[in-house]
Amino acid sequence: MDKVLEDFLNTVKFDGNGLICAIAQDDATGDILMQAFMNRDALQRTLETGKVHYWSRSRQKLWFKGESSGNVQELRGLFIDCDNDSLLLRIHQIGNAACHTGYRSCYYRKFTPAGLETIGEPVFDPKKVYGA
Amino acid sequence: MDKVLEDFLNTVKFDGNGLICAIAQDDATGDILMQAFMNRDALQRTLETGKVHYWSRSRQKLWFKGESSGNVQELRGLFIDCDNDSLLLRIHQIGNAACHTGYRSCYYRKFTPAGLETIGEPVFDPKKVYGA
Repeated sequence: MDKVLEDFLNTVKFDGNGLICAIAQDDATGDILMQAFMNRDALQRTLETGKVHYWSRSRQKLWFKGESSGNVQELRGLFIDCDNDSLLLRIHQIGNAACHTGYRSCYYRKFTPAGLETIGEPVFDPKKVYGA
Repeated sequence: MDKVLEDFLNTVKFDGNGLICAIAQDDATGDILMQAFMNRDALQRTLETGKVHYWSRSRQKLWFKGESSGNVQELRGLFIDCDNDSLLLRIHQIGNAACHTGYRSCYYRKFTPAGLETIGEPVFDPKKVYGA
């Protein structure tokens, strides 16, 4: 492995489950598209391939984002926070939607005094992408 | 407690430690300033006061952001993700800096082929704000 990459992976503080929070931000618009977790392997593959990989907590396996849907996230920049325990990914979102529900961003519901309000419209129909 | 707020708090999926990831984004610029965690109490106080509260994992106590530094975060909008386990806070950052190191954003270091590169300049001197 590249020495710079290895040094970086050793700098990252993974939590007790071996995970670090990763925030995906659209590099062109600044929109927050999603937040997930990475383990060391997912972070290494992301930096080596330029395509974002996460660790799926629900499926307990490496998750190449977009493998099923085609909505791959191309890495444009990676930042780490002051405590080395949070990552900010600047990405280009293929298919213009990050969320498995079909919305562009996973944060499509806003808290209001009347309850949760849905913002915007779905970009794709999840039944067509993932099957019924 | 307000019924809408109570319903929302019951919708939120806190993790095994009673925490949820919260991302603070500058409402005016879209910059990501920091990421921390909230417990139910911190989320309730944030929504009731309009000022962001987190749960400090290192100090194991409620953390009213800006209590020491004056760099309070005024809540402008709160979004929840598709899985109900991640929050996006749109905020106005008093003092124009969120990071305890004096930088505007906690994500002031970028991974590059030459290693971590510091982006930008500190906004304040932490020694003057927090003491030596």
